[in-house]
Amino acid sequence: MTSLRFTKGHGTENDFVLVPDLDGTLGDLLTDEAVRLLCDRRAGIGADGIIRVVPTSAAEEVTVREQAGAAPWFMDYRNADGSRAQMCGNGSRVFAAYLRREGLETGGHFSIATRSGVKQVHFEGENISIDLGPWELADPLTAAAKGFDATVVVPGGPELSGLSVDMGNPHTVAVLPAEIDLDRLDLSRPPVVFPRPQDGTNVEIVHVIGPGRIRLRVHERGVGETRSCGTGASAAALATKFWQGAGAPNEWTVEVPGGTLVVRAVGDSGVELVGPAALVADGVTTLLG
Amino acid sequence: MTSLRFTKGHGTENDFVLVPDLDGTLGDLLTDEAVRLLCDRRAGIGADGIIRVVPTSAAEEVTVREQAGAAPWFMDYRNADGSRAQMCGNGSRVFAAYLRREGLETGGHFSIATRSGVKQVHFEGENISIDLGPWELADPLTAAAKGFDATVVVPGGPELSGLSVDMGNPHTVAVLPAEIDLDRLDLSRPPVVFPRPQDGTNVEIVHVIGPGRIRLRVHERGVGETRSCGTGASAAALATKFWQGAGAPNEWTVEVPGGTLVVRAVGDSGVELVGPAALVADGVTTLLG
Repeated sequence: MTSLRFTKGHGTENDFVLVPDLDGTLGDLLTDEAVRLLCDRRAGIGADGIIRVVPTSAAEEVTVREQAGAAPWFMDYRNADGSRAQMCGNGSRVFAAYLRREGLETGGHFSIATRSGVKQVHFEGENISIDLGPWELADPLTAAAKGFDATVVVPGGPELSGLSVDMGNPHTVAVLPAEIDLDRLDLSRPPVVFPRPQDGTNVEIVHVIGPGRIRLRVHERGVGETRSCGTGASAAALATKFWQGAGAPNEWTVEVPGGTLVVRAVGDSGVELVGPAALVADGVTTLLG
Repeated sequence: MTSLRFTKGHGTENDFVLVPDLDGTLGDLLTDEAVRLLCDRRAGIGADGIIRVVPTSAAEEVTVREQAGAAPWFMDYRNADGSRAQMCGNGSRVFAAYLRREGLETGGHFSIATRSGVKQVHFEGENISIDLGPWELADPLTAAAKGFDATVVVPGGPELSGLSVDMGNPHTVAVLPAEIDLDRLDLSRPPVVFPRPQDGTNVEIVHVIGPGRIRLRVHERGVGETRSCGTGASAAALATKFWQGAGAPNEWTVEVPGGTLVVRAVGDSGVELVGPAALVADGVTTLLG
């Protein structure tokens, strides 16, 4: 019987099962089916995704192994359906917290390898920052001319103007008028976006609640409403900053259902996501036979 | 920092966090808030409920302590909201599997203490049986005269005749005509039952798929649709047996979304639930501070 060690953690309630693979031997064990079983919230352990902690030099992908000189540890992130993901903002903080707790990294600033390249991690007291850039407006000409480039229709609710932001993955951000209750919107079905994005989009509905401060709810493409989405929080802050124009703050506090994040715009195309990470349990599972 | 040991397990995908408390000292730690956090599927470990494994002699309730002579171990079952439950059919199998694995019980037949009295456990190969009786029809006179005593309306779906079964908790069972697809019913909202039960009811929608064999979906009162419900499977089998009258089998195979259970009618008011139990992970959590 295979006993697999794991740690469960979350970042603003986006939760993960970390699987330490310090000698890089577990790649074959973590089939799509194995990942689905580990993430199963009733028959398994339960998580939004699996993060294998593996030496960068032992990664399957050559584009990851090439990062080994800059970042010794690779965040091998798998979605709950088994598919490989490029990057996960909330997951990267949990990954970084694990590396520090285990003594695999000892400084307050280090680099991690991801499928979208080397990312910088900084510990800031209780919080951890990660660079999520580069980002860009999906349609800068239309955005500059009209201020928006899409229409977002919440089922049974209002029709809103939206702005499309490319964070490596697609987002459409819409501001909700202050007089409409954000908590009462029905996001059990996906908001409809026009023009229809070919590969779908993540949708953020935002309330501006103060200078440099927003609240949001997010509907993730292919998943549904979630408690938090790191790239979504970033897209929402960047879109709001765009709408506010010159003089808008560079640092934004973003309240998501699962907690509070900070988003910092850095130059024209850089962005940092700052937030907490919690490691809540350590264990051993016999799920994989 | 308090480190709490735990084991995660499930019975037909009704899942539990077991907390061993072999010297009976953890009662005060497991406040309602602590139970809610442990059961939180994103910020905590995640489960439908918590089962504290505690000596019967150390139970808070005198009615439980009185069972100590008959059953040394008490299944202290807590719902995910922190409230105390009388009994849980799927949970009792997981509890029994844990007692055997840990060597706290060594035979294939033993008694466990619950808030609804001493229950008998039998190991039958891979499966475990537990007595869930006594049960009774909620309105035997109407049931005898008409065959049903309620109407069940599935939202956007058919109107069905139902039978109310008291398993210690209330159930209303309705058979779906074979030509209607059970999998396509919308149980995201509660089925409406007339006359309206004062304290609500659990609703089972059943397809008879062969002699002594049914499939069902269940909507649990205050919870929503679940993958499995032990008392619901029992109520559904007993109602179907009632409708089939003299000559109906005493043993029923019940396919629920989370797996397969067997229900055995024993005499007029006895019933046994038989099914699997899986212990999938063992660990330590620092969630409780």
